Amino acid sequence: MHNISQYQDFFISYLKSQSINKEPKSLYEPIEYILGLGGKRMRPVLTLMASEVFDTDYKVALPAAMAVEVFHNFSLVHDDIMDDAPLRRGQETVHEKWNINTGILSGDAMLILAYQYFEQYEPTVFRDLAKLFSKTALEVCEGQQWDVDFEERNNVTIPEYLKMIEYKTAVLVAAAMKMGAIVAKTSEKEAELIYDFGLNLGLAFQLQDDFLDAFGDPETFGKQVGGDIIENKKTFLYIKALEFSNPEKASELRELFNLQLEDNTKKIETAKAIFIESGASKATQEAIEMYTYKAFETLDKMDINPEKKNILRKFGENLMGRKV
Amino acid sequence: MHNISQYQDFFISYLKSQSINKEPKSLYEPIEYILGLGGKRMRPVLTLMASEVFDTDYKVALPAAMAVEVFHNFSLVHDDIMDDAPLRRGQETVHEKWNINTGILSGDAMLILAYQYFEQYEPTVFRDLAKLFSKTALEVCEGQQWDVDFEERNNVTIPEYLKMIEYKTAVLVAAAMKMGAIVAKTSEKEAELIYDFGLNLGLAFQLQDDFLDAFGDPETFGKQVGGDIIENKKTFLYIKALEFSNPEKASELRELFNLQLEDNTKKIETAKAIFIESGASKATQEAIEMYTYKAFETLDKMDINPEKKNILRKFGENLMGRKV
Repeated sequence: MHNISQYQDFFISYLKSQSINKEPKSLYEPIEYILGLGGKRMRPVLTLMASEVFDTDYKVALPAAMAVEVFHNFSLVHDDIMDDAPLRRGQETVHEKWNINTGILSGDAMLILAYQYFEQYEPTVFRDLAKLFSKTALEVCEGQQWDVDFEERNNVTIPEYLKMIEYKTAVLVAAAMKMGAIVAKTSEKEAELIYDFGLNLGLAFQLQDDFLDAFGDPETFGKQVGGDIIENKKTFLYIKALEFSNPEKASELRELFNLQLEDNTKKIETAKAIFIESGASKATQEAIEMYTYKAFETLDKMDINPEKKNILRKFGENLMGRKV
Repeated sequence: MHNISQYQDFFISYLKSQSINKEPKSLYEPIEYILGLGGKRMRPVLTLMASEVFDTDYKVALPAAMAVEVFHNFSLVHDDIMDDAPLRRGQETVHEKWNINTGILSGDAMLILAYQYFEQYEPTVFRDLAKLFSKTALEVCEGQQWDVDFEERNNVTIPEYLKMIEYKTAVLVAAAMKMGAIVAKTSEKEAELIYDFGLNLGLAFQLQDDFLDAFGDPETFGKQVGGDIIENKKTFLYIKALEFSNPEKASELRELFNLQLEDNTKKIETAKAIFIESGASKATQEAIEMYTYKAFETLDKMDINPEKKNILRKFGENLMGRKV
């Protein structure tokens, strides 16, 4: 096995070796652009790592890892159009640098390109990968749609919110790992276990993202601390705070999350105070721990050598130990 | 074998039997809507017909036919956003009835759903179908991008234009037929021949569409006659007319195709006169005949019984014999 930064390097070399910029340039240039913007490459790294956990050279997993990364970037391109986002990883988004039509069409092409990477595998592996991929991709679309729908609603429940982040974020982390298991031709049981490991870790990761958005260190947190509060996003923290608060506090919070302000300093302060006082902040931390624990529990059930379990556990601890 | 209207009925029954409207409704309702709008269902009918040409019950081909139809409708939903089209088959387009974000996301889900229909086949058939599908889908995106790019250019050549309509329209007709061959597990040679039959017929069909847009019978032509002229579309007729005209006539035509008018009666009249005088109209009719002939030539090479060849030929003659 290798370490994370080695897997990142392996993946980036592979990505660079792919000749993506074909004709028409106006279709493929935006694809090369978004894939080149960087990021931690967490999902493809997980695919490579999972293949080696199951005793298969990471090289075998490279095309599957590429499919995962291309799909993830497809979803970013289309989501950025829907969110009217000007920036992605500090650079212009595709629809901003080109135009909306280019964003739609280049995104479509990426979704298809992702499937084509599976063609490098034999028929049964190809089918297993493509089936998992289709199921996952459709869930990601459904998660995105729930997220859009929730913006219009004032009665989103915790189970609904959890389902939304599971679909929008966690299933792709889970599928990325299971793809490593599929190319390694491991048993269905082991493949399901690593899927569950990824799913729970993905949920923990997204809840932590919600938490750090409010309580992260402004010095080291990549995005603006309080961004979700400014945008009135109904995160786990918010829904839990409503649940735990008395009617007056709840309506104070609801009113706060109807405001569109120039200066948000006071709003962020008040919201964070309610999150803490109501116990929502503590409940979020407990949920993060619970999902991380569930992920590690899944590891215990796996039939792989303890050293490899340890590497996966370390990865999870590192991911969840981040303070930013 | 059955006749066209029987295949249409078989396909529509199958389409209606599919439970597409799942949760979240806001994602799946637009999909059910666009798939229910009707149309001739030409592409899925060709898949069913091709399977029976190769002695396989059309029922085996239904999921593949469905994938083709779902993909075709995906491309309509996204193209309508890009073209800002208010109507599709006389009804509101998806982005008009809902909004652009719904159009993007429901379209994405349709592209994935199309792939899922192949899961009903065994691994090697699944892989052959999905590979052909990905190649075709990517070509359709490329064709759409060429079409967009050509709007900005004044020097599009006939070979470039033919490549564009091949990718944007003909490859899907060809692939629809080849999918029938794949599910019938015919030889690669026969599958390629029926692909070529569909490709040439598709090209003839699109060129005829260009021709009828200018010279069709207003009584029976579904769209507004002269629509391409009004929108200054650089079709085969236009490019040929430029090629065949002396410099003065050519600049008259170029200027004509820069106009945006309230009343287009005179413009349409003038353009049609130039199309006829220059010989562009005749050249277009000859190109249509040539591609139809090439399609029928391919039939001769096929190793199927003469009765079945005759059915395919009849279908081609019917399609090309349309005056509207």
